Amino acid sequence: MENSNLQDYSHKRFNILTGEWVLVSPHRAKRPWQGQNETVNNEKRPTYDKTCYLCAGNTRINGEVNPKYEDVFIFTNDFAALQSDSPKFNVNDGLLIAESETGICKVICFSPDHSKSLADMSPLEIQKVVYAWQDQYKELGSNPKINYVQIFENKGAVMGCSNPHPHGQIWSQSTLPNEVYKKNTQQLNYFNKNSSSLLGDYLEQESENQERIIFENDGFVVLVPFWAIWPFEAMIVPKRHMANFLEMTEAETLQYAEAIAVLTKAYDKIFNTSFPYSSGIHQSPTNGKENTHWHWHMSFYPPLLRSASVKKFMVGYEMFGSPQRDITAESAVKMIKALL
Amino acid sequence: MENSNLQDYSHKRFNILTGEWVLVSPHRAKRPWQGQNETVNNEKRPTYDKTCYLCAGNTRINGEVNPKYEDVFIFTNDFAALQSDSPKFNVNDGLLIAESETGICKVICFSPDHSKSLADMSPLEIQKVVYAWQDQYKELGSNPKINYVQIFENKGAVMGCSNPHPHGQIWSQSTLPNEVYKKNTQQLNYFNKNSSSLLGDYLEQESENQERIIFENDGFVVLVPFWAIWPFEAMIVPKRHMANFLEMTEAETLQYAEAIAVLTKAYDKIFNTSFPYSSGIHQSPTNGKENTHWHWHMSFYPPLLRSASVKKFMVGYEMFGSPQRDITAESAVKMIKALL
Ligand SMILES: O=P(O)(O)O[C@H]1O[C@H](CO)[C@@H](O)[C@H](O)[C@H]1O
Ligand SMILES: O=P(O)(O)O[C@H]1O[C@H](CO)[C@@H](O)[C@H](O)[C@H]1O
Repeated sequence: MENSNLQDYSHKRFNILTGEWVLVSPHRAKRPWQGQNETVNNEKRPTYDKTCYLCAGNTRINGEVNPKYEDVFIFTNDFAALQSDSPKFNVNDGLLIAESETGICKVICFSPDHSKSLADMSPLEIQKVVYAWQDQYKELGSNPKINYVQIFENKGAVMGCSNPHPHGQIWSQSTLPNEVYKKNTQQLNYFNKNSSSLLGDYLEQESENQERIIFENDGFVVLVPFWAIWPFEAMIVPKRHMANFLEMTEAETLQYAEAIAVLTKAYDKIFNTSFPYSSGIHQSPTNGKENTHWHWHMSFYPPLLRSASVKKFMVGYEMFGSPQRDITAESAVKMIKALL
Repeated sequence: MENSNLQDYSHKRFNILTGEWVLVSPHRAKRPWQGQNETVNNEKRPTYDKTCYLCAGNTRINGEVNPKYEDVFIFTNDFAALQSDSPKFNVNDGLLIAESETGICKVICFSPDHSKSLADMSPLEIQKVVYAWQDQYKELGSNPKINYVQIFENKGAVMGCSNPHPHGQIWSQSTLPNEVYKKNTQQLNYFNKNSSSLLGDYLEQESENQERIIFENDGFVVLVPFWAIWPFEAMIVPKRHMANFLEMTEAETLQYAEAIAVLTKAYDKIFNTSFPYSSGIHQSPTNGKENTHWHWHMSFYPPLLRSASVKKFMVGYEMFGSPQRDITAESAVKMIKALL
């Protein structure tokens, strides 16, 4: 399928995973930009910063001292949004509806080297991060109070990241967050109807014409989904149907790490800057159910649109209407592929 | 209902209008901030700027000259995200689903005075903006191809606003955007079940204990909804059940203008800065249906959290999980009310 209308005229595309739409305005990238520019900090950071609360051996705000870690270091978030020991309560007062929510929030340092990001790490180094994510998913998930484990990374000041030291977060909780709930429903409905994985079938379709595929190895495909929202959004999807990433073989953990390395390195080349993004892994809930309808995947939502300093704002129309993008998924793929 | 648990422990609240949840972490505002600060521009702007493409008498990028307007000025967006003359097409190719989307996008200048914002305008001046919004909703809505009219404003550079001249936008289109679709469904279900307006009944409940009400006059209530996401989010709701704002009486148009004036003036006092936000009016679709289940309202989503330079980032967890807020709706009300 190559439909030139999609490159020329405004249209909306359907997100099969969430059941929602994105408005695409291909012609709109031509408008001049007179709005806010982001400050770009391309300064090389030192490998160790004595004021950084994530560097090895340093003291955190609560007085704890970080160990002299050598690859990955994990600790419970000192300012966790979710607490594990709060009381259970709920409000069911007419149209006021609330429920207590408990959980455990962790921080995971990807490397002791303050100057690095995932884009500067080798697949073997990233594989250690993957192992740590797996351990956390397993450990947190085995807690009867934790029914979902959200692994994510905010990279770059423009993405609200308060410390440039390479790190991500894990927020785990008792109920399914909105986005996970939507993806759970869409995948379940599809699986019940077709007895196959929604994302698996989607991958098959994308493999046929390759138009949106950035990279693939034996185990994984890196692509820009047809319904991408962010200018350079991308997704890493395992070729095999796996509900969560504990099902990976040893070989696949390295292939997954390679996919992350390839994508993040290409990202840094787009605007010659350490490319900001939020990334997140969506996989089966840890609620003890079968969850075979799930096909785990990792998504990257980078905000930059035109240059290292001009981002896409998801504001007004996007907040009250639908997400809207100015360049098509297909042109983004071309730009990223040229940088591999 | 005053439940002290809601002020102390993490919980989620249900948004009756969208059917989605927000995670509230009341204790989290205590964490220190080491992340990105926004540049604050508190410079007084001149009343006329010869480089501004929205000032009266100036030439826009496409060569058109703005009239010497005296209150409100409306024109079709020079870089519209939606076009009215594009071909009709759709893609229905397995899991690739898309539809052409047409529409009309307009820009509306609230005042010829470059230095002002709605917060600096009198209710009588704002009433003229209300009249213009009504005209546009009526005119665009009577076009058979336009089934929804989204009126919104992005205020401030941090909200992607590319020009400080007081202005808003109107994007109208043939189908319902995601957020409107959700609110349509929730209101319809409630109306079918209870034969009353969801927001009307909610207002009644809020009036009983006043805990979340900021201000009210004869026709309108300004409140922080129980399920607010943004730190100082607020909503203006008409007391009478009206599907859209064409149903306002003459007196109500001025009461509505007063509500906008009161809220935006209080906002500017919170951090002694011209308070950025995106605002939007949700009202009945213009699809020729009855739509009596709709109760129109205007929402304000301001991003600032701790000061004029520190905003709330909706990133990582918020993008992959659910929106999350650090101060409760009730404490926000207290802060805003103290500034009236
Ligand atoms: O149309 P403007 O003001 O140039 O652009 C702004 O508002 C639009 C509608 O909310 C957004 O899509 C843009 O990202 C934002 O920068
Ligand atoms: O936890 P951090 O890195 O201090 O905070 C960042 O990530 C969180 C989770 O996405 C967000 O809620 C915050 O708004 C953001 O600044």
